[in-house]
Amino acid sequence: MPSESDFLDWIRSQQSISPHVLLPAGDDLAILKWPDNELLLVGADQVLDGIHFDSSKHTPRQIGRKAMNRNLSDCAAMACLPAAAIATVALPRGAGIEFAKELYLGLRDAGGAFNCPIVGGDTASWDGKLVLSVMILGRAEGIAPITRLGAKTNDGLYVTGALGGSILGRHMTFTPRIKEARILAQSVPITAMIDISDGLSRDLARICQQSNVGATIDASAVPIHPDAIALSRQSGRSPLEHALHDGEDHELLFTCPTRPPAGTLIGRITADRSLLLVRNGKTEPLSTKGWDYPL
Amino acid sequence: MPSESDFLDWIRSQQSISPHVLLPAGDDLAILKWPDNELLLVGADQVLDGIHFDSSKHTPRQIGRKAMNRNLSDCAAMACLPAAAIATVALPRGAGIEFAKELYLGLRDAGGAFNCPIVGGDTASWDGKLVLSVMILGRAEGIAPITRLGAKTNDGLYVTGALGGSILGRHMTFTPRIKEARILAQSVPITAMIDISDGLSRDLARICQQSNVGATIDASAVPIHPDAIALSRQSGRSPLEHALHDGEDHELLFTCPTRPPAGTLIGRITADRSLLLVRNGKTEPLSTKGWDYPL
Repeated sequence: MPSESDFLDWIRSQQSISPHVLLPAGDDLAILKWPDNELLLVGADQVLDGIHFDSSKHTPRQIGRKAMNRNLSDCAAMACLPAAAIATVALPRGAGIEFAKELYLGLRDAGGAFNCPIVGGDTASWDGKLVLSVMILGRAEGIAPITRLGAKTNDGLYVTGALGGSILGRHMTFTPRIKEARILAQSVPITAMIDISDGLSRDLARICQQSNVGATIDASAVPIHPDAIALSRQSGRSPLEHALHDGEDHELLFTCPTRPPAGTLIGRITADRSLLLVRNGKTEPLSTKGWDYPL
Repeated sequence: MPSESDFLDWIRSQQSISPHVLLPAGDDLAILKWPDNELLLVGADQVLDGIHFDSSKHTPRQIGRKAMNRNLSDCAAMACLPAAAIATVALPRGAGIEFAKELYLGLRDAGGAFNCPIVGGDTASWDGKLVLSVMILGRAEGIAPITRLGAKTNDGLYVTGALGGSILGRHMTFTPRIKEARILAQSVPITAMIDISDGLSRDLARICQQSNVGATIDASAVPIHPDAIALSRQSGRSPLEHALHDGEDHELLFTCPTRPPAGTLIGRITADRSLLLVRNGKTEPLSTKGWDYPL
């Protein structure tokens, strides 16, 4: 029966050459050459069977891609470029080496699209369900990282795409908005940015909380994805509700005092710290119903 | 009921100031200032309930410490200093925020002992068992990283401590040999090094495979831990068997052409690629029985 060692041997054979990587996966740690005076950004995101994917429905290649793309989307949210990634995988016992290879290829495909090699990790098998955790390193490369804490009163509030209903499939197949983020950040003074992972309302609340401001959203301006309309027919909730509160769109939500070259204006930052929704001429509180794990 | 957001708010309140950390956990990614011309080492290790710990027996503080210490031990194996860590945790639903805080404090305690702050991560809860995954960043800081691939014929083979029987408790409480590694690497030309996580025989095989050499171990020289003797009474296997093949000692195994200031000489590197054990004057093949996951 193939073992972890066989899998690691195979991974070593798959490693690509990168100018930053002095020693790739295969030792206790990988060794990178980091550019002089370059900021180093780091973060991590995991995907869990039954929460972020369904192993009875999604292929390991899709699962690997999603795990990597969630992290690449965090790079987009800071307007940085990914530099390298590390992954740990807890494999259900008996999943098999082909399954493990497909997971790896999913990670590699998604990372490869943004020149982000996988430089290490850890594999174990257990009698639990699949867990895939990815840690990412990013580099600023000439653009100051954009945080969540710079939104200013009267800034416009923008999103890079239509929202809602990602659970119908887009949550597995989204494209991280790295290119868009870099173009935006080079063109206009973006004051705060986040990728929408837990829902527009909840992620907007994070920007507002950290920037110590509030926001008003114009309901009629929120771009609603066709999936939100399709899901509305099943859920009985309105397409707008789905666009405001569904998670895993992975579009960028950002604030900017000037007109950006891309993005839909959906509202404005306010000095008053409340979150409001203007709908049919009436102003109401915007609830933050997005994803939050009870512990 | 407390949620992931409450936990993240609490984590933010726990963050310590570090000269390298420009922006700590709380945004999409953390931002570090990396020293000029400094090598960056990266790796990851996870701990799984039922494999690396037993949640019915070990406290979350102990589990957090082990997860961090496994990664710190990888730093020791490269003779680098830890710089920062990131963690992802898959929490069993209903574990509670106090449990999550204890996990974090275990990570922080262990990292704190080596000036290694936790700068980010991801928390989710699910109906699976506990998984804690840690990624570590290390810096060379004046010592060239020691890989597994430099062992030379006639080098002495050394270990930093007694081996075997760690499952009786030491696998949760070991101290990463970072200080020892730094002293060794500054004193003598260490040619290859690894931390013993999967057993002396298997980890020695890794050094030999990557260095394209073999090794002969003197059975009478292998330092046997009292735990190996205690375990031998239960297992019916000899204390030497436990010392050779048990995992999670996390002592360092290294090769060196000169006499190091610390470490026990247990054998020698050979040009012939086989692994041999000399016992009672007889030479036999050394089997590599250590830990390897069937996939």
